Amino acid sequence: MTIPSHVIEMLQKIRSRFQTEPLRARLLPKGAAFATLRTVRRASTASVAKYWDRFGATTTPEDHDAIADPLTMADPARFSANIENFIGTVKVPVGIIGPLRINGLNAHGDYHVPMATTEAALVASYARGAYAASKSGGISTALLYEGVIRTPAFVFDGLLDAGMFVEWVVQEVAALKAAAEGTTGHGKLISVEPVIDNNVVFLICRYTTGDAAGQNMVTIATNALCEDIAARCPIAMKAWYIEGNFSGDKKASFLGLVTGRGRKVSASVTLPASVVEKTLGTTVQAMLDYGQVANLGAHLSGQLGTQAHFANGLAALYIATGQDAACVAESAIGITRMEPRGEDLFCSVTMPNILVGSVGGGTSLPSQSAGLNILGLKGAGKGAALAEVAAATCLCGEISIVAAIAAGHFTRAHEQLARQR
Amino acid sequence: MTIPSHVIEMLQKIRSRFQTEPLRARLLPKGAAFATLRTVRRASTASVAKYWDRFGATTTPEDHDAIADPLTMADPARFSANIENFIGTVKVPVGIIGPLRINGLNAHGDYHVPMATTEAALVASYARGAYAASKSGGISTALLYEGVIRTPAFVFDGLLDAGMFVEWVVQEVAALKAAAEGTTGHGKLISVEPVIDNNVVFLICRYTTGDAAGQNMVTIATNALCEDIAARCPIAMKAWYIEGNFSGDKKASFLGLVTGRGRKVSASVTLPASVVEKTLGTTVQAMLDYGQVANLGAHLSGQLGTQAHFANGLAALYIATGQDAACVAESAIGITRMEPRGEDLFCSVTMPNILVGSVGGGTSLPSQSAGLNILGLKGAGKGAALAEVAAATCLCGEISIVAAIAAGHFTRAHEQLARQR
Amino acid sequence: MTIPSHVIEMLQKIRSRFQTEPLRARLLPKGAAFATLRTVRRASTASVAKYWDRFGATTTPEDHDAIADPLTMADPARFSANIENFIGTVKVPVGIIGPLRINGLNAHGDYHVPMATTEAALVASYARGAYAASKSGGISTALLYEGVIRTPAFVFDGLLDAGMFVEWVVQEVAALKAAAEGTTGHGKLISVEPVIDNNVVFLICRYTTGDAAGQNMVTIATNALCEDIAARCPIAMKAWYIEGNFSGDKKASFLGLVTGRGRKVSASVTLPASVVEKTLGTTVQAMLDYGQVANLGAHLSGQLGTQAHFANGLAALYIATGQDAACVAESAIGITRMEPRGEDLFCSVTMPNILVGSVGGGTSLPSQSAGLNILGLKGAGKGAALAEVAAATCLCGEISIVAAIAAGHFTRAHEQLARQR
Amino acid sequence: MTIPSHVIEMLQKIRSRFQTEPLRARLLPKGAAFATLRTVRRASTASVAKYWDRFGATTTPEDHDAIADPLTMADPARFSANIENFIGTVKVPVGIIGPLRINGLNAHGDYHVPMATTEAALVASYARGAYAASKSGGISTALLYEGVIRTPAFVFDGLLDAGMFVEWVVQEVAALKAAAEGTTGHGKLISVEPVIDNNVVFLICRYTTGDAAGQNMVTIATNALCEDIAARCPIAMKAWYIEGNFSGDKKASFLGLVTGRGRKVSASVTLPASVVEKTLGTTVQAMLDYGQVANLGAHLSGQLGTQAHFANGLAALYIATGQDAACVAESAIGITRMEPRGEDLFCSVTMPNILVGSVGGGTSLPSQSAGLNILGLKGAGKGAALAEVAAATCLCGEISIVAAIAAGHFTRAHEQLARQR
Repeated sequence: MTIPSHVIEMLQKIRSRFQTEPLRARLLPKGAAFATLRTVRRASTASVAKYWDRFGATTTPEDHDAIADPLTMADPARFSANIENFIGTVKVPVGIIGPLRINGLNAHGDYHVPMATTEAALVASYARGAYAASKSGGISTALLYEGVIRTPAFVFDGLLDAGMFVEWVVQEVAALKAAAEGTTGHGKLISVEPVIDNNVVFLICRYTTGDAAGQNMVTIATNALCEDIAARCPIAMKAWYIEGNFSGDKKASFLGLVTGRGRKVSASVTLPASVVEKTLGTTVQAMLDYGQVANLGAHLSGQLGTQAHFANGLAALYIATGQDAACVAESAIGITRMEPRGEDLFCSVTMPNILVGSVGGGTSLPSQSAGLNILGLKGAGKGAALAEVAAATCLCGEISIVAAIAAGHFTRAHEQLARQR
Repeated sequence: MTIPSHVIEMLQKIRSRFQTEPLRARLLPKGAAFATLRTVRRASTASVAKYWDRFGATTTPEDHDAIADPLTMADPARFSANIENFIGTVKVPVGIIGPLRINGLNAHGDYHVPMATTEAALVASYARGAYAASKSGGISTALLYEGVIRTPAFVFDGLLDAGMFVEWVVQEVAALKAAAEGTTGHGKLISVEPVIDNNVVFLICRYTTGDAAGQNMVTIATNALCEDIAARCPIAMKAWYIEGNFSGDKKASFLGLVTGRGRKVSASVTLPASVVEKTLGTTVQAMLDYGQVANLGAHLSGQLGTQAHFANGLAALYIATGQDAACVAESAIGITRMEPRGEDLFCSVTMPNILVGSVGGGTSLPSQSAGLNILGLKGAGKGAALAEVAAATCLCGEISIVAAIAAGHFTRAHEQLARQR
Repeated sequence: MTIPSHVIEMLQKIRSRFQTEPLRARLLPKGAAFATLRTVRRASTASVAKYWDRFGATTTPEDHDAIADPLTMADPARFSANIENFIGTVKVPVGIIGPLRINGLNAHGDYHVPMATTEAALVASYARGAYAASKSGGISTALLYEGVIRTPAFVFDGLLDAGMFVEWVVQEVAALKAAAEGTTGHGKLISVEPVIDNNVVFLICRYTTGDAAGQNMVTIATNALCEDIAARCPIAMKAWYIEGNFSGDKKASFLGLVTGRGRKVSASVTLPASVVEKTLGTTVQAMLDYGQVANLGAHLSGQLGTQAHFANGLAALYIATGQDAACVAESAIGITRMEPRGEDLFCSVTMPNILVGSVGGGTSLPSQSAGLNILGLKGAGKGAALAEVAAATCLCGEISIVAAIAAGHFTRAHEQLARQR
Repeated sequence: MTIPSHVIEMLQKIRSRFQTEPLRARLLPKGAAFATLRTVRRASTASVAKYWDRFGATTTPEDHDAIADPLTMADPARFSANIENFIGTVKVPVGIIGPLRINGLNAHGDYHVPMATTEAALVASYARGAYAASKSGGISTALLYEGVIRTPAFVFDGLLDAGMFVEWVVQEVAALKAAAEGTTGHGKLISVEPVIDNNVVFLICRYTTGDAAGQNMVTIATNALCEDIAARCPIAMKAWYIEGNFSGDKKASFLGLVTGRGRKVSASVTLPASVVEKTLGTTVQAMLDYGQVANLGAHLSGQLGTQAHFANGLAALYIATGQDAACVAESAIGITRMEPRGEDLFCSVTMPNILVGSVGGGTSLPSQSAGLNILGLKGAGKGAALAEVAAATCLCGEISIVAAIAAGHFTRAHEQLARQR
């Protein structure tokens, strides 16, 4: 059979449901009128009610109450800086891991880390890793680097104009920096690097963003920089764009892996053999052996770096603390490593793209703010520590999953914890 | 200056805060006792209270009430199949886009799509795209493929044993399929593909998973398959692992881009020039021009496929409907394309790794269930339609952001909608 | 300094050489007439002489004699199936490594491997690796897989037609296979896998190609397949292309890493500690330690797999035996691994994309044919063995470079061997 | 059938040839003595004869004469700075394309480009592209960037030492630069960029290398830099390595795509519609249409950038001019673009990793030197121009293949030109 079985399988599925001709009609555009919804920027009890009226028969009063509950509806307007077309809130369960001992450049002490998820076993697994790490004296962490990038693109007639544009930008960089930084009290433009592809020039504009994740901050600053260029640059431009789809915003990219986007943190711990055996139920050698295979799998399947499940820890922490959950796409890349240290096991994670803030974004919403307060990391001066907590949390998850797979416990944990459904 | 400015900048930051010697002590493991938390699988009012007692001075009563609110605390046990160490819920604001007209193989009709996010402008942007698409007659969608993979790894002494193992697996595939499928009423093992790296063999086990996202289902089924192999295979094995870190579970990978993981959906719409101009405030040519630059940026920065911000739409939809938000890391890759069609603009997205279910995971929690009900896609028989809604939603987001950047409106929207903070 | 030093450096270089205005003129198209060269398919003494007459003052009679030497000019027509516009031959020095003992599925015995290169130290380094491997009892090799792919692309109006096309192809696959295989006595179409991106369908057509590398063979076969489709398929097609730039022909790709293109071979050897110490001048532990760092470097810099310098061995062997040197771009990816085995060192390479043939291409040219004869691998029935030799040779190179870097000898070897220049 | 057909196919092949048990013996190490070859650094008539004596029965006197021909054997020692264990030369046929008009920053004029290959149709195809480009007024080229990198790795006990090491390097960078540059008259260390992964630090050392490709130069310079660090750095180091397998030396990597390695050149031409039609036999629109599909194929198959066959042009030029053919692996990545310009077609290539030199390497061997003389680009001051010729040549190849595939001529050309075999 020359056609792979999974292709055949899918075709049978489709065929079994449809005949060809009705299918064509089904997929065609339909001109019939549809009832539009006005975009609502500032939510009110009335605006919320209007939406619910529209949902009709598929929703029940219980559905309404689950989302538009009294607590949420007590002040719908408080969500207006964070969302449009507001209809209530979804309640994501939060579990706690810790206390997680962190001995970091910025984070320091024993932390309770809130994690929001609907996936059974996730919190238990991270908690186990946290317990093993804390028992081993805690996790060392260091923020190694910061720099959120925006990469506007400029299009010229040809290569020569592109080159002259770069020359002009280099001459004018002080003025451009002033234009960018004039829009923000916290952002600093720390590097501008041109990348030329014939008649198109991307400028990698790299910023520190204070305690905020900073994605809006760098957009606004870069826009000012671009407008200054557009106003003053003598080289004729065909177009410019605030983002040339080059920065890796909201997506995994090798640029992010190579040069970092957001905060780069490294975290490590050396687990004594006794902790590996008693707490994790396996051996140092078994974990190292699996590490070799896991690393091979990462290479063969074309991952960006090598790690097990940063995304689980990041998504749970981001949601619980009001970060941008979509940034998990770009943050969840990097390197997990293990090495023997005598009888013991050194483990580290290095994560180049952590996008978190202790201010801004969703951090001031009530439950998200509470999440940050559980960590003691809300407000000014805490952004770097929060990034270190994120990396330390991911390290806990890596330790736990590697131990579970090495010991053959992985499936059992998932079976048991999801059984109550 | 041979060292890049951003490196210098970071070193100054670190130096300004610390002297070297205290730093060394600060990063060392700390042996002091720490107060451990018992893992709680079945939450109760008492178990939740115990955690809050421990958080101490950094949290306020308002924080407690924001997370452990009365509605949540009315029945903490109902979250026990989804989380451990439960302390309450985080409230993520939900906005609505639509009605989004979808003319799909599986989804069909006008949908209100709930999106949970804390990022201002996101819902408004997707809503604008949905309006443009619906005005154009709606989005055609098709589920093209299904197949969640698990990739156990088997380690042998050498190449010959690895080869003989593959031979054995091929002979025994019917029995192995039976072992795997015996664990599940919904999963079907549709393909087994061996990948050999000398003495290590990965088996790419591909399943259809009914209406569930299916990640636990395939883990349990593959575990049974592995145990059957371990029990019966005559070739001496040094180790086997339920997952060789090859499947791309919770992470972006080229394997996922090439062969798909989860549901693969394609969605497209042709926007009349008039819709581009009136609804989106730009021109077909401007969008096409930007598309060329955005595609170049994707190539140059080493992205997986080319798209703008699938992650935004996916994270918002996943959270609002009880999906696994960590899967955004693997789902947010694929292809966005635009082409001229006469005067009009053809736009499509093809997304190989959508991991959603209309049953299982967080779908039965009250507010998440309500999210699915708003779509009318809760329960059996709706998984495929939900995947098509996910792709159609992402297409709305792509249309809107491309138009905004092409027209130079992108920054303005973010400035205005986040201003109320 | 916000602009990186290397950017400044380059701009100064350019500025120092040119003023802006002459530059613009310099880069403009120039309409002046130019003397064209007629394409010559069948070379003759006269056709060669005509070219040399044109080269003029920059070439000397010695240059002419170095390329159009008497041996070459004795029968210029014999090169006509391999090149157009022939002017002579370039003489690439050939060195020998071995005897390299190979205990392979297909290659078996002690081989002298010819390597053509102009880079000092390369042959010496591979020879050292070959000596270490042979002293250890030789290299085990296995051809694991074969399959050269071509991936024609078919463009439709929309998604539905694309889907119906796939359905049609699946129904017709036997006829299409016959059409493809009708063009070749040696090629077999072993798999057809459709990949849909909305209205575009790629067909991954995978062939075994007998003892040839097979790239022309699969092009011609796939063309017949496409023409059969174009003639008979009832679904309206906007365009079709013999290659959708998807197959990875002449370029590194993750598709090649994941699914292979050409011959996939794995090769391994266990080096006793004594061989590592005496022959390679380092220790097993030192090589393992460096292996960890080298693997980390591969991940962080975004390589395809992890290996040191497959390209050196492949380019040298390909040139010496009449293979297509451009295929080094796609062949030079894969995995090198090392593991401790007791006191000894297990080393392996797995290479998914080896494109070699013992017939066809440049294999029948006199000196290339001689290269194959030195190996004893010319002609029918030797293609698989040749692929195994290629992998074994690369393993020798990996062993030698890892040992040299681990021992700190790498630079010294290059300094000494290139000194005679 | 759950197992893919190509897997079954391969297993049958293997089974048909072997029974299991003999197979095991066949793959085992063999302890029997083997006749070793002494490494010969300085070739002589006697040393060459000794090798040929060993080859035995598989080679004929004709084979000997084809490789160890009288011209080569007139002075075997002249190859000694380029190869060890010398046995003669392989004769690679050379074809000419051009005159290729280049209007470049560095290359300027009408060039005859020598290309060495054994693949029929390659030279004819590039010649067609060169003719089209020259008829259009020639190709504009610019060297945009230079920088060959070496990336030594330094291993420490932990993160803190790694950080302190970076701090020390930054303080000492002037001295380190002096140490590196003290080894070379032509190399300049233009940037040092640290990359930390917990306890491992890579230093990206970037050099300009004058007119040489420079790979040995940067190795020797970086070795001096490392030895200076090792001698003076007060932070305890566990190990250092001259190359951390990070630089992308001899392999495709995203680091190379993002930051460049070697010389980065962009080349472009605008082809009038009439040239596309008359010379290339297709239309501007057909080429643009195919470009969209080819670009999609590049994304979906995980290539590094998007291009058709840089490797063909590079390998042929590198071999003909004494460059390192193994560098094709890293050089053959980058971007090909096409855009409409009114009725005409703008085409460009941007290649970040061209590794060529007009001095050093194989450039002084007789026939290779003649190759450079045909271009008029031998010796000091010509390195930049040679890089521009390489890019311009690749652009010719891209134009020709895109036109051939768009017009449906691709297969026919290969059939006809290889027919004479």
